[in-house]
Amino acid sequence: MSGFVSFVSSGPGDPELLTLKAVDRIKRADAILYDDLSAGPILELARPEADLVGVGKRAGRPSPRQDHVSRLLVDYAATGGRVVRLKSGDAGIFGRLEEEVIALRAAGVPHEVIPGVSAASAAAAACDLSLTRRLTARRVQFVTGHDVTGALPEGLNMAALADPAVVTAVYMGRRTFAEFAERLIAFGLSPETPALLAEGVSTPGQSLQFSDIATLRDRLRAAPPGLDPALILYGPLGEPGPEVIR
Amino acid sequence: MSGFVSFVSSGPGDPELLTLKAVDRIKRADAILYDDLSAGPILELARPEADLVGVGKRAGRPSPRQDHVSRLLVDYAATGGRVVRLKSGDAGIFGRLEEEVIALRAAGVPHEVIPGVSAASAAAAACDLSLTRRLTARRVQFVTGHDVTGALPEGLNMAALADPAVVTAVYMGRRTFAEFAERLIAFGLSPETPALLAEGVSTPGQSLQFSDIATLRDRLRAAPPGLDPALILYGPLGEPGPEVIR
Repeated sequence: MSGFVSFVSSGPGDPELLTLKAVDRIKRADAILYDDLSAGPILELARPEADLVGVGKRAGRPSPRQDHVSRLLVDYAATGGRVVRLKSGDAGIFGRLEEEVIALRAAGVPHEVIPGVSAASAAAAACDLSLTRRLTARRVQFVTGHDVTGALPEGLNMAALADPAVVTAVYMGRRTFAEFAERLIAFGLSPETPALLAEGVSTPGQSLQFSDIATLRDRLRAAPPGLDPALILYGPLGEPGPEVIR
Repeated sequence: MSGFVSFVSSGPGDPELLTLKAVDRIKRADAILYDDLSAGPILELARPEADLVGVGKRAGRPSPRQDHVSRLLVDYAATGGRVVRLKSGDAGIFGRLEEEVIALRAAGVPHEVIPGVSAASAAAAACDLSLTRRLTARRVQFVTGHDVTGALPEGLNMAALADPAVVTAVYMGRRTFAEFAERLIAFGLSPETPALLAEGVSTPGQSLQFSDIATLRDRLRAAPPGLDPALILYGPLGEPGPEVIR
């Protein structure tokens, strides 16, 4: 007999931004497999006897292989218990969900996916901004700032990414944004396009820096490598609230 | 002295997909202004003495003017209480948030935005799918299926929308998708591109129909107008779970 796996989206970091369903699953779990990014105070909700297993995927640092994580998940489920696979933000957005779902299907392990608050939604909300705007930003898009090697992904659709009428959220893009901004500007996007660097959104260390893509490019080029996760928003963002630093 | 307004994202419909923060604000509210789409069982969390005010924006039906909603919000705040402005999904994604935030800023009303689970995340999770995929869908984009007149918006960036390597979520697109799919196919997107029509996600009436953009075009062309909200996903969606109807 098999256990049950809940893929639980942990949101941007503040435990108050967990859904009721996520809290329920975490509180009842026999084992929780978590990434660094989804850890912290959220794990305090777990039962004292629950196994807490860090599987430590973090951009730019060595981490367990994806197939190892999938196998662990299947192994924990095989013990018959309730297993939570905690993923930061929304599990379906740059959460490497698919590989693990495929492994569970292949092993015949019943499972569910609990959606959550993605970093882009949380960053916009923290700045008193909307990701879409009625006439000026009718499309919003999310991209990743790096591929598995840490470099800017190949085959970027620049016509989509340099569209001045769109808000773009770049996930895990801190280290590649200088190069990315250069390409946006070369493709014709104005250097003065508003940009927001959001770090630690909804956590005590939250930092929200508002500038434009050229300024942010220069800042990130000069900055030490720094830790992801950082989320970058650029496009016709509108006027942010007083929470941001300019 | 002024009250305080919380813009609360109510998620896709299931009260269990509210965040803890959203539940807290709803439970403490003196007044709740809600759209039809965000109503239902979520309002049962309100205190019995709270004012529940329907402001009834719903695609395709007459609804109060946006400036009337903004004025109501300012008026309720002026009474000094805790006001919740409930918005379905994530308030920052096609939630007409900006107009109301601007009105509150102009009136000097303190406020906050609480992010939530957007319909696209909930629809993908319900189908055991991810909105992004490691090599095949590195970008995900959200668009609206209609402008204020109910027609397909002008100036669509077809190079972005017909990109075969991207998952697209079309919000409120039921009535315009036949025309939209026609344009995608004319632009070169394969008629066999997978498509999902998700209605009432996370509610007891949930319906998940999986086909391709040409089939969905034909079905929606033949169907009676039907009610939004419906969410359509298309692109390299991967293999959905057994929850979907084919």
